[in-house]
Amino acid sequence: MPTAADSSISQGTRKSNEGDERTMDGLVKRVQQGGLVPKNSTVILGLSGGPDSLTLLHILKELESPENLNIVPVHVNHQLRENADSEERHAAEICREWNLPCRVRRIDCRSIARAQKCSVEEAGRTARYRIFDEVAEELLQEGVPKERIRIALAHNADDQCETLLQRIVRGTGIRGLAGIPSTRRDEKGYAIVRPLLSTSRKEIEDYAAEHALRPNYDESNDSVEYTRNRIRRELIPYLEKYFNPGVKEALQSLAEIAGPEENYMEEQARTALAALQREAPQDERILDANGLRVLHSAIIRRVVAQVIRECSGDENLRYTIVENVLNILKSENPSASVNLPGGWRAERRYEELVFRKVAPDDEHAMEGRHHLRVQVLKKDSAAFEDVRNAQKEIVPCAVLDYDKLCREYPEPEKKLMLRTRKAGDRIGIAGGKHKKIQDYMVDRKIPKEYRDWLEMIAIGREILWILPNSGIPNEVEQKKGRISQKYQIEEGSKAFLFLEITDCL
Amino acid sequence: MPTAADSSISQGTRKSNEGDERTMDGLVKRVQQGGLVPKNSTVILGLSGGPDSLTLLHILKELESPENLNIVPVHVNHQLRENADSEERHAAEICREWNLPCRVRRIDCRSIARAQKCSVEEAGRTARYRIFDEVAEELLQEGVPKERIRIALAHNADDQCETLLQRIVRGTGIRGLAGIPSTRRDEKGYAIVRPLLSTSRKEIEDYAAEHALRPNYDESNDSVEYTRNRIRRELIPYLEKYFNPGVKEALQSLAEIAGPEENYMEEQARTALAALQREAPQDERILDANGLRVLHSAIIRRVVAQVIRECSGDENLRYTIVENVLNILKSENPSASVNLPGGWRAERRYEELVFRKVAPDDEHAMEGRHHLRVQVLKKDSAAFEDVRNAQKEIVPCAVLDYDKLCREYPEPEKKLMLRTRKAGDRIGIAGGKHKKIQDYMVDRKIPKEYRDWLEMIAIGREILWILPNSGIPNEVEQKKGRISQKYQIEEGSKAFLFLEITDCL
Repeated sequence: MPTAADSSISQGTRKSNEGDERTMDGLVKRVQQGGLVPKNSTVILGLSGGPDSLTLLHILKELESPENLNIVPVHVNHQLRENADSEERHAAEICREWNLPCRVRRIDCRSIARAQKCSVEEAGRTARYRIFDEVAEELLQEGVPKERIRIALAHNADDQCETLLQRIVRGTGIRGLAGIPSTRRDEKGYAIVRPLLSTSRKEIEDYAAEHALRPNYDESNDSVEYTRNRIRRELIPYLEKYFNPGVKEALQSLAEIAGPEENYMEEQARTALAALQREAPQDERILDANGLRVLHSAIIRRVVAQVIRECSGDENLRYTIVENVLNILKSENPSASVNLPGGWRAERRYEELVFRKVAPDDEHAMEGRHHLRVQVLKKDSAAFEDVRNAQKEIVPCAVLDYDKLCREYPEPEKKLMLRTRKAGDRIGIAGGKHKKIQDYMVDRKIPKEYRDWLEMIAIGREILWILPNSGIPNEVEQKKGRISQKYQIEEGSKAFLFLEITDCL
Repeated sequence: MPTAADSSISQGTRKSNEGDERTMDGLVKRVQQGGLVPKNSTVILGLSGGPDSLTLLHILKELESPENLNIVPVHVNHQLRENADSEERHAAEICREWNLPCRVRRIDCRSIARAQKCSVEEAGRTARYRIFDEVAEELLQEGVPKERIRIALAHNADDQCETLLQRIVRGTGIRGLAGIPSTRRDEKGYAIVRPLLSTSRKEIEDYAAEHALRPNYDESNDSVEYTRNRIRRELIPYLEKYFNPGVKEALQSLAEIAGPEENYMEEQARTALAALQREAPQDERILDANGLRVLHSAIIRRVVAQVIRECSGDENLRYTIVENVLNILKSENPSASVNLPGGWRAERRYEELVFRKVAPDDEHAMEGRHHLRVQVLKKDSAAFEDVRNAQKEIVPCAVLDYDKLCREYPEPEKKLMLRTRKAGDRIGIAGGKHKKIQDYMVDRKIPKEYRDWLEMIAIGREILWILPNSGIPNEVEQKKGRISQKYQIEEGSKAFLFLEITDCL
């Protein structure tokens, strides 16, 4: 709660246009000192109109004159919620009041989702980032130098702490503990910054109240996210009550420690890798195994993980995959080998560690080990509604209608198999029909060398879920896999079979 | 569950004395390959007789001939539990059956606890480790070379995962995520090893059942630990159910990743520190601030943390303390300073970062920020019994009788102050009397330069809890602090005031 002293300080701020730092609001000053929005920047601000983005806009406005900022609020109307249009008007109105040129963009999330066969949330997210890049390109055209442009997003410390907890429980290394980055370059090279990443949701709400901002309180894209919601509403309050009332700050500190350490270790590993790498034919990477073995064990693991990531394009390496490669490095068997994601394989070739793309007729086995979570949820269970929404997440999970499944297979949860393709495999498609997996692979243009690598959840020859795989060209299926439409859940579904993959490095 | 194939393999093991590795039990082989108990070692094994230590003993016995191990089981009778003596007989009997020379030692935990003014659990733990060292010294006398001696303890993967969760929720850096080390040297330089650290409690129990071992199932020293128990019985099952059934494996992997990374980063920081250090008078450490500033931010933080740890002797640095020093390093104020634990201070002296022991008459302020958890628990609350035991933990917490407090101070939980000493401060001692804090400090031989640094929880001039501080020579109070005896809880206590410090680096 703001004390009398606090509020007199903040009143000072509102009057201050002379850039007197001593009279500035704590939060404004913190953003200023964070250095993510340097003087003379042009800041594209994702303005949903919610408390986070509206607070960030207000802070930038406070900084505007002393910092000579050029603020470009961008409101993306997702045309999803009933009051989407009134929210658009509201955002535009605030910008008008504050004398800022608001750019409004409308996207049709539902059409994009249909076209790209992804969830509307995901369609919205992709389109939103694309729009920020488009605005950045426009600014470039208008003569703003690229290095002055910042895309500012209003993620806060609570988002950060939820991300960390989610990763810790699902499985992560130091990489994942670094959390949401406060600054990064997007694919087009624009700097994305998050100036509120160390500010709590509570501080933001206090700021918004104190400055009489009028945010749209229900504009939140992740309110539909299953795991995230349970973390926010249940796990964190539980941890605060029984273990540590400062658990959020503790997690935030952990991210602040892990971020630079991750960055440093990756740099060290990159240097080591460069020195170990030998000339190799295309689709092959060769490392000096002896040179690798004498390095510090932490560096060995990171070098191996870097190579696998680069080969496979898989950013979410499972721990066991890296361990398997480390084992063949240690192995006394000079021809040990291990399968990697994306149709690659690591092999010992005497004193070389070789990563190569394998032909599909190579002998192979299922690599690594998945943690597949299987749950049957009845309509009266607390998690039922959450899980209905979980399928829309980016997280690799599948939600199927349990009763439909039972009609074909009594106790289907006991019959699930995780395996690669077999002759005669088929998957349910729209209209109650089936498609051969072979045809699916052709339709989806999955390269031949990947086809024997795709993992699937099957009952007999019926495929319920083709697991996410970097070999699937379709972006959504690469991340979510492909779920049988035959057992798709509907409005009236009374029970779900919930499948989820966890444990990433 | 062991399948038919499994059990035929393990029968093979039991018969095998020829060291044929192919017929060896999986767990035996894993211990062998872990390399923590090399061939020709002499292994001092802490044998409580519980499933963990009995399984470890059985595994070492299986390895005995091929590895030429010399197994020395040591049973410590803590003389606490009703059946302590029958457990002693049981352990001795098993060793006789297996033809191993069991050494039995008895300790009087209650007397030690009274003498050292610590909990019986802590007294037991310290005495246990001391006994292992004594046995090691005996072996040395008998002609066993020191480098061949291993002190083997039977901590398992579940212990590891509980430790990690406890640290994550309380606050930790990468250091804490490294968890329980699988190998370390104790103060006398003996190697302590934990060959079962990557084996789950379930695997151990399966092994014990399969091999018809007869463990004492209730011998567990941490069964009385509050936080640990809630993590084991409540938090982990909850995370397994709603987030990830493989959460324990995920945490174990995290420890296995963090361990070597911690070790590597510390090495890097040590090298950097050596290069930055300048000649300094006693009780002072001087670093080249410019040289420090140009390093990678992860290394800067670690160098600073190393120096603070070395100065203060405080191994559990809070995040904010290190951050404060980093801030004065960045500060444009050439004479910024910050207080450190143990009566030290970090100062900018132009281009030097100086750590020096300060005189007690120096102006000072309360450093860092504690997360002090305050809870009032009534007898009918679920946590009541747990909390009664929590006071016996090593964790910095204080449990006071709430009703006794209320008789002196209505709503005492609202009147708590965290501060350093003031004239006239007193603390309750046995017999309903008070002692001046000044006298306490003299009695406890607290060096003068520390006295103004001790933090206390007070109501008015009455001290309820002197917080743990590295400046207190008494080992227990260094870790637990000193709690007022006036409000000590008793059998009939109906409500507790529970105070706990969290958030360590």
